[in-house]
Amino acid sequence: MSAGLARRTVAEALGTALLLAAVVGSGIMGERLAGGNVAIALLANSIATGAVLAALTLTVGPLSGAHFNPVVTAVAAWQGELRRADVTAYVVAQLSGAVAGVAVANLMFGGPAFSVSRHVRQGGAQFFSEFIATFGLLFVIVGCSRMQPRLVAFAVGAYITAAYWFTGSTSFANPAVTLARSVSDTFTGIRPADVPVFVLAQLGGATAAAFLTRWLFPGTPPKEAG
Amino acid sequence: MSAGLARRTVAEALGTALLLAAVVGSGIMGERLAGGNVAIALLANSIATGAVLAALTLTVGPLSGAHFNPVVTAVAAWQGELRRADVTAYVVAQLSGAVAGVAVANLMFGGPAFSVSRHVRQGGAQFFSEFIATFGLLFVIVGCSRMQPRLVAFAVGAYITAAYWFTGSTSFANPAVTLARSVSDTFTGIRPADVPVFVLAQLGGATAAAFLTRWLFPGTPPKEAG
Amino acid sequence: MSAGLARRTVAEALGTALLLAAVVGSGIMGERLAGGNVAIALLANSIATGAVLAALTLTVGPLSGAHFNPVVTAVAAWQGELRRADVTAYVVAQLSGAVAGVAVANLMFGGPAFSVSRHVRQGGAQFFSEFIATFGLLFVIVGCSRMQPRLVAFAVGAYITAAYWFTGSTSFANPAVTLARSVSDTFTGIRPADVPVFVLAQLGGATAAAFLTRWLFPGTPPKEAG
Amino acid sequence: MSAGLARRTVAEALGTALLLAAVVGSGIMGERLAGGNVAIALLANSIATGAVLAALTLTVGPLSGAHFNPVVTAVAAWQGELRRADVTAYVVAQLSGAVAGVAVANLMFGGPAFSVSRHVRQGGAQFFSEFIATFGLLFVIVGCSRMQPRLVAFAVGAYITAAYWFTGSTSFANPAVTLARSVSDTFTGIRPADVPVFVLAQLGGATAAAFLTRWLFPGTPPKEAG
Repeated sequence: MSAGLARRTVAEALGTALLLAAVVGSGIMGERLAGGNVAIALLANSIATGAVLAALTLTVGPLSGAHFNPVVTAVAAWQGELRRADVTAYVVAQLSGAVAGVAVANLMFGGPAFSVSRHVRQGGAQFFSEFIATFGLLFVIVGCSRMQPRLVAFAVGAYITAAYWFTGSTSFANPAVTLARSVSDTFTGIRPADVPVFVLAQLGGATAAAFLTRWLFPGTPPKEAG
Repeated sequence: MSAGLARRTVAEALGTALLLAAVVGSGIMGERLAGGNVAIALLANSIATGAVLAALTLTVGPLSGAHFNPVVTAVAAWQGELRRADVTAYVVAQLSGAVAGVAVANLMFGGPAFSVSRHVRQGGAQFFSEFIATFGLLFVIVGCSRMQPRLVAFAVGAYITAAYWFTGSTSFANPAVTLARSVSDTFTGIRPADVPVFVLAQLGGATAAAFLTRWLFPGTPPKEAG
Repeated sequence: MSAGLARRTVAEALGTALLLAAVVGSGIMGERLAGGNVAIALLANSIATGAVLAALTLTVGPLSGAHFNPVVTAVAAWQGELRRADVTAYVVAQLSGAVAGVAVANLMFGGPAFSVSRHVRQGGAQFFSEFIATFGLLFVIVGCSRMQPRLVAFAVGAYITAAYWFTGSTSFANPAVTLARSVSDTFTGIRPADVPVFVLAQLGGATAAAFLTRWLFPGTPPKEAG
Repeated sequence: MSAGLARRTVAEALGTALLLAAVVGSGIMGERLAGGNVAIALLANSIATGAVLAALTLTVGPLSGAHFNPVVTAVAAWQGELRRADVTAYVVAQLSGAVAGVAVANLMFGGPAFSVSRHVRQGGAQFFSEFIATFGLLFVIVGCSRMQPRLVAFAVGAYITAAYWFTGSTSFANPAVTLARSVSDTFTGIRPADVPVFVLAQLGGATAAAFLTRWLFPGTPPKEAG
């Protein structure tokens, strides 16, 4: 493993861990404090998630790409922006980081490191929501990365804050996130039995976006100042 | 149709579809979760809309201009920033995308693809609100596009989040958005009978802004780094 | 009057009008919808105000400086960044725009154009709050304008959103805004009798910041890319 | 003391004072208005804190570095970005500014300048939360400063808004902030007896981040446009 790849995979693992800590942690805090008003809990959860995603993308974007998401990594490799030999290391780092981040969140709120979620998330509307959520995410990431890469952190953070609200599933849009959220029986959890369908929908949305954006945004990214 | 125009119109259709999905979808989610507190629902709706608008403008701005709005397209053509021959294709793309986006939102929340809105929005204050909302939107878009084009996504997203709150009509400010919102009988809907007056007010506000900004911001946009 | 000054004063008048429409309008909407929870109303009011201020500063900043505030104009002139001959025109534009903006807000919500506020805002803590609010505002504007002028819109918008919450007076910090808010008997109003003390505190805070920042940020702004 | 150091320490003192005024002041306002819903109070508190932190970092970042935090200063010195001889002056400025800022907040809301907090914050989950909060903060600051320094204000503001929600302790992450918050018996206070453990956790998190980021982000920051 080259030194470069080691640093990039640690960046992906750490970034994904902090992302999951924020997703799950802010869900716990939101639900605890909101006095039963789920909209207020989701407002906190969505603002915290979008904000931390922007911050982490600004932090490691120039180093690893700040994917934090296996389908983003897959699309980047398919479109020639990441060496295919690096894909496995990236995905392993993201999955490990995501699970570790959930443990961090659970422990920060005094719970056990892991607990199996009982939050049911199923049905056609949920499947369609995850397809759309992931399609939109990849559309934004690929488009903005090609046209104005230094601003992609803002685009991704803003998109996710919005997508928590406008999709019926609150926009998981990420297989590593989905898997990891199954081991926290809290506000943002998902029942393990519902994970495969969510991941399938995410793969579908990402595939559609990969083909579309290859046609829509051809060529290499423009050079930016600096 | 040139390849360039095909890509640009797809970008406009897709962007407008995701914008409408976000407007209508976050309205449904907000109303469902807010427990009757309309301010909390509108807070979610306004933050989600502004955030997704910024994200989509960052994504396709350099490709199509990210108008997502027939009056923005009309003013851009009148001020020489879009070929007049492209206007029809842009507007058809925006209208189709908007209607499709509403169906996506309705389906993501388990409803029928379309339902006729019964949300009454009429009266002089609503008309005046739409005039001001659209005037302000065009003022911000034209001014910021001329002076510092790479930041227009932030200006437009911030303006719309604010305008949801400071206009009596919650700022539709867009004929394609207005028309499409008439086919969702949910939080952000508008009764079809009220659409024409809204569109008339929007045309008035856009016309006023077009003349004013032509005088206020003459000349071509400055070159920006990159 | 040179053509340049005409355009710049119209930009100041229009920007200040839209700023006041947003301040007062979002206050009315917030109070109407919040069901008695003042924190939710203020959250909407503070987010809308900060967002519109950032949008308007991005729009006319390169043209007129986007002061929208007599004390900002005065400090800019004193520090050599605006011709002293232009000060009167700027201040007249700001005051006229502010009053017009309040009428726009009142009319958008179906009220009379003007109504005298009965909102009592007095006492030492309010005076001290306005001193601090204005001191901080000028500190941010002058510092950020000198060091990284293209980002001042973000700094000012963020500061005002925060200052609505962290000052006991909700941070008027602007004599034109203060005067204009006395003619709207709504959420953001101020009793005319309380205006002079607020303005006095604002002048004090601005004067302190003017001297301090002249020492703290000497020299001319750095050239930025573009 | 060189003129440069005098200006930089005043910038650190003033920035830290305004930061604490915002943290404590928005906590008081939030609690007063939220009608017992702690989530709404924390939403206001977290948005105000993140926004003011971004604004202040944009204002004095190019002058002093905008540390506002002894552990940030320590890590910067250790990594060679600040002269070690300047560390004491920076830390004294931060501590003095923080305490002064708390007094400003208390006085703006009509309370006594200082009052000893009775807010209990103790236990392993709180300790672990502060370790993670500070680790993440330093990770973001060092990484973003190295890779794209002009955007660090946005990264830090966004991170702190999120960390208020995703850590069990609401993320103090700063010894000067922690100490100062012990002398305000309000929403954001901390009992003096709990301060040492919080500071210990913060030192641990900062140390871990310092070693990790030295390996992860080697070399000097890239030159940016302007």
